[in-house]
Amino acid sequence: MTTERRLEETSDFRPRFDGSGLLPVIAQHESTGEVLMLAYMNAEALRLTIDTGEAHYWSRSRSTIWRKGETSGEVQEVVELRIDCDQDALLMIVRLKGNGVACHTGRRSCFYRSVHGNMLRFAEIKD
Amino acid sequence: MTTERRLEETSDFRPRFDGSGLLPVIAQHESTGEVLMLAYMNAEALRLTIDTGEAHYWSRSRSTIWRKGETSGEVQEVVELRIDCDQDALLMIVRLKGNGVACHTGRRSCFYRSVHGNMLRFAEIKD
Repeated sequence: MTTERRLEETSDFRPRFDGSGLLPVIAQHESTGEVLMLAYMNAEALRLTIDTGEAHYWSRSRSTIWRKGETSGEVQEVVELRIDCDQDALLMIVRLKGNGVACHTGRRSCFYRSVHGNMLRFAEIKD
Repeated sequence: MTTERRLEETSDFRPRFDGSGLLPVIAQHESTGEVLMLAYMNAEALRLTIDTGEAHYWSRSRSTIWRKGETSGEVQEVVELRIDCDQDALLMIVRLKGNGVACHTGRRSCFYRSVHGNMLRFAEIKD
């Protein structure tokens, strides 16, 4: 069995962090299925997330771990954590606490604009 | 207005590729909302995706652009492309052609295992 195939079919959790020690994490809304944000975890943020059941990310701009909602109150409770075939990306199903806002701009999702050629249109976010 | 705030509120499409010239892309199923995969695009793959309306990715292992479905037939038709607040991640809503399989292991989604401590459980994928 190749290394690749072992990663795909194993029951062992072996997250593969990138050269910077990070793993991309997709946060998805538990009930609506809406994709809320893409962020990163290092090994410590992942451990804290699993141990506490609340999303912890690595801030690449501030080079620090942050507990999501620490200042805003917009805590993300982990409902389920999934890993992809080659174990280098996570999908985290979350329950939104606070006001149900995941984006720091105050919008529920960070993906509030759609691409049309070289322009963006602000997308309607349904409640 | 800060650079950050300009990126968040502009209508100009200014994707921010990382140090390797890549942007992470989340592919989400058009009708079920299922998160199918996380892959990467460089500027050329993004251009091809927009021009053809079909997903093109950058393969980090093979260092080449691949049109999704080129060999498998599992083409991803782009329904909508969204960018996040700071323009360094894409969300692509796709319609699956072929047999409706996004993962190269033959599963619909790459996220077929959930994390339980140090172990993974194979998740049921609902049809």
